[in-house]
Amino acid sequence: MLQQNYTLQDMKYLFETVKAFNRPDEKHGVTRIAYSVEDEVTHQYMIDMMASHGLSVRKDAMGNIFARLSGKNSQLPAVGTGSHLDTVPQGGAYDGVIGVITGVYALMQFNPGELLRDLELVIFRAEESSRFGFSCAGSKAMVGSVSSDTWVENLDDSGKNFIQVVEQMGYSGKEIDTCLLPDNYFSAFVEVHIEQGKRLEMDGLAIGVVNGIAAPTRYAVNVKGHADHSGATPMNLRQDALVASAMLINDINHAACRESCWGTVGTVGKLNVYPNAMNVIPGEVIFYVDIRGVDSLSISRVAQLLEESVHKAEVDNNVEISLRKISSEEPVKLDESIGTVIAQQCKKNNIRYITMLSGAGHDTMNIAKKYPSAMIFTPSKGGISHHPDEYTDFSDIEVAAKLLTDTLKELANSQ
Amino acid sequence: MLQQNYTLQDMKYLFETVKAFNRPDEKHGVTRIAYSVEDEVTHQYMIDMMASHGLSVRKDAMGNIFARLSGKNSQLPAVGTGSHLDTVPQGGAYDGVIGVITGVYALMQFNPGELLRDLELVIFRAEESSRFGFSCAGSKAMVGSVSSDTWVENLDDSGKNFIQVVEQMGYSGKEIDTCLLPDNYFSAFVEVHIEQGKRLEMDGLAIGVVNGIAAPTRYAVNVKGHADHSGATPMNLRQDALVASAMLINDINHAACRESCWGTVGTVGKLNVYPNAMNVIPGEVIFYVDIRGVDSLSISRVAQLLEESVHKAEVDNNVEISLRKISSEEPVKLDESIGTVIAQQCKKNNIRYITMLSGAGHDTMNIAKKYPSAMIFTPSKGGISHHPDEYTDFSDIEVAAKLLTDTLKELANSQ
Repeated sequence: MLQQNYTLQDMKYLFETVKAFNRPDEKHGVTRIAYSVEDEVTHQYMIDMMASHGLSVRKDAMGNIFARLSGKNSQLPAVGTGSHLDTVPQGGAYDGVIGVITGVYALMQFNPGELLRDLELVIFRAEESSRFGFSCAGSKAMVGSVSSDTWVENLDDSGKNFIQVVEQMGYSGKEIDTCLLPDNYFSAFVEVHIEQGKRLEMDGLAIGVVNGIAAPTRYAVNVKGHADHSGATPMNLRQDALVASAMLINDINHAACRESCWGTVGTVGKLNVYPNAMNVIPGEVIFYVDIRGVDSLSISRVAQLLEESVHKAEVDNNVEISLRKISSEEPVKLDESIGTVIAQQCKKNNIRYITMLSGAGHDTMNIAKKYPSAMIFTPSKGGISHHPDEYTDFSDIEVAAKLLTDTLKELANSQ
Repeated sequence: MLQQNYTLQDMKYLFETVKAFNRPDEKHGVTRIAYSVEDEVTHQYMIDMMASHGLSVRKDAMGNIFARLSGKNSQLPAVGTGSHLDTVPQGGAYDGVIGVITGVYALMQFNPGELLRDLELVIFRAEESSRFGFSCAGSKAMVGSVSSDTWVENLDDSGKNFIQVVEQMGYSGKEIDTCLLPDNYFSAFVEVHIEQGKRLEMDGLAIGVVNGIAAPTRYAVNVKGHADHSGATPMNLRQDALVASAMLINDINHAACRESCWGTVGTVGKLNVYPNAMNVIPGEVIFYVDIRGVDSLSISRVAQLLEESVHKAEVDNNVEISLRKISSEEPVKLDESIGTVIAQQCKKNNIRYITMLSGAGHDTMNIAKKYPSAMIFTPSKGGISHHPDEYTDFSDIEVAAKLLTDTLKELANSQ
C-alpha cells in the first residue's frame, strides 16, 4: 500500500496520461467520445492503475467504475467523489478529468481503515451528450431517472442506440437497471469540476463552492409578421417580425437582469430571420429562449414576464407570436451542510472562495436527487470550455485536490 | 389613323398580350428578364403595334423605345410618359407594364396635331436589377448618370456584362453614350406605376400622386461580443451581441417612427447570428439597416440617432460595434406643378387620391434629374410586388389611364 506517497506530482502525471488518450491524429484538443476505443482504454487504464494502488475496483453493467477505500465501518454509507472522462469532439483536457484525478489524489492520501466511512471514487460513463443526444447516462442510471425508451430511441451518428453500443463494447446493456444504487449508498457526494464560466477568473478566486445547479427552461418562439417592401411600406402599416423579436429579446434580457440576484440567466442564442433580405421587412422570425437558474420561482418570474411581453409585442407590431415550451427541468439545490464543510476548509486554509451556482449540468445533478451532494469549481481561463483552448492552471487544480482531500476526510469521519 | 377608337378594352387586350410573353414553361408568375428572348420579342411587338397605329417609333442604341404623337409645334419640348416591360424572375404582370399600356391608351386618345406639344411614350430597358445587379439602365443612360465602368463591371449569371449582352441582342453597346437625351427634350414626364405598397388599398383610394421617390441610405452593422455558455455566464459578465443588436433595432424603429411624418422609413431586413446555438450567448451579429425617405434632413436624423444608439449599445453590453455606410443616395423630389395638375384632374373627376411618396425606385427617379417629372400610383393588392400574386384591379388601371390622358392633355397644351 503506497497511498501515503501519492503526490501532487503523481496527479499531474495522471492528468498528462489521460490527456494522451485521444482520437488518433486529432490535431485540435482532445476527442474521447463516450464508448469510443479511446474512451474505453482510458477507463481500463484507470481500473488497472487504481487497483494497483490497493483500491478495490468494480464496474457496473454499463461500465461505470467504482474504486473504494475502506474505512473503519464499511456498513455505513460511503462518502463519494468523482466525475467523467469522456469529452465532446475536439474538446478540452480538463472538463470531467480533473474531478477524477483530484478524486484519485484524495483517496490516495488515506490508509484503509484510517477514516470512519469508506471513500469511493466514481467514474461516470457518457456524461457528454455529444454521442447520443442526452447527457449523464451513467449518473442517471445510478439514480434510475431515465425512462427505458431513452436508451433505445436516441441513436448515435452510426445509427446505433445506447444499448447496442454498450453491448458492442462488452457490457451488459440489457442489465442497465442493475446500475441503480441502493438508497443508503452514499452519505455525501462531492464532485470537483472546472467552472466553464469566467466568474472565478474575473474575481481572482481559486475555488467556487457550488450551492445549486441550474436547469434550463426553454422556449421556441415563432413570430409571424408580413414580408413587405422596405421602401414602400410606411412605418404604421408594418408587421415587422424582427422589431417584435427585438422587443422580446430586450424584455427577456431585462427580466433576467432583474432576477440575476437569484442566479437566474436568460439568453436568446439562436435566431433566424425570413426571408432575410436587406430590402424586405422580416415576415417571420424564429428564435429560442434559454432561461436557467436554481430558483424555480425566479425562473418562472422570467417566464411570466416573457409571456406578458409576447402579448405587448403582438399588439405593438401587429404580428402573431407563438410561444412553445420545449423543456422545463427542475433546478437542483445542493446540500447546504456539505457546502458549509467545504467553505470551512477554505477558510481554514486561506483559500479565496465564493459560493456560486453552476450554469451547466453535471453528473452531481443526478446524484443529488438521492444523496446529499455538493460541487467544487476551479477557474476556467476565459470561461472557455468544450474547446481546445479549455485551460485551468495546475496550481488551481492542486488547491482543489487538497480541498477535496480535507473535505472528504471531514465527511468520512462524521457520524 | 384609328387612334380615336382605341378603347379601355383594347388596353386590356394589350395587357393580356404582354402578359403572355413569358419564359417558356414558367409556372409561377411572369419572367421577362431584361434582354432575354421573351423581353426582346415583347419590345418588338410593341414597336410594330404602335407603328401600325400611326405613332412614329424609334429605338436608341440600347433598345429603349420612343413612340411619338406629333402636336401642333414639334419644336417645343415634348410631354413624356412611359415605364418598363422587363420583370424580376417569377414576378408579376403589373410592375412596369401598366405604365406602358396606360401610356399607349393615353396617346391613342389624340389625333396628330390636336395638342400643342408632341406626346412621347418611352419604354425603358432593364429597369429591374435582377440581371446585372443595377437598376434603371435605360433611364440612367438617357440622363447620363452611369459611369462607363458600370456597363462593363457588372456581370449577369452567365458572366456577360451589359455591353456584351446588348451587342448580342443586335444593339450598339459601344454607342450607349448616344442614348443621352438633349437638355430640352421633355417639358414634363409622368409615369404610371403600381404602388408596390399597401397604403392606397388600406385607405380605399384609387390614385396616389407621387411627390417624391425615396432613396436608401444603408449601413452594414457588425456587433462583436463574446460567445459564452448560456448557463455558466452571469448577466453582468455577458457580451451579448444579440441583445446589443436588439437595442439598435428598437432604436432604429423608434427613430423611423418619429420621422414617419416626413415619409421616412427604417428597416433591419437581414440579420445573422453567430454561432447561432441555443445554449451559446451570441458572440457576433451582422445586420443591415435600410433607411429611406425623400427628406434628406429626416434621413440624416435617423442616421444620427443610429450612430448615437451604437455608442450606448456598446457601453451597455460591453461589445464593439462597427457601422459602415454602404450606400447613401439622394432622395428625389418630384415636380410640384405637375403634381398639382394631376391632383386637379383627380378632383375634377371625383377620383379619391392621396399625395404620397414612392418607397421603391423607378425610371422617373432618373428622368427627374433633367426634366420636371411626376408619377401616378395605382393600388397594389396587399402591397405585394415582385411576386406572382402581384395584382391591381383593372378598374383601377382604367382610372389611371384616363387620369394620365387628362394630365398629358393639360401638360401638352400648356405654353
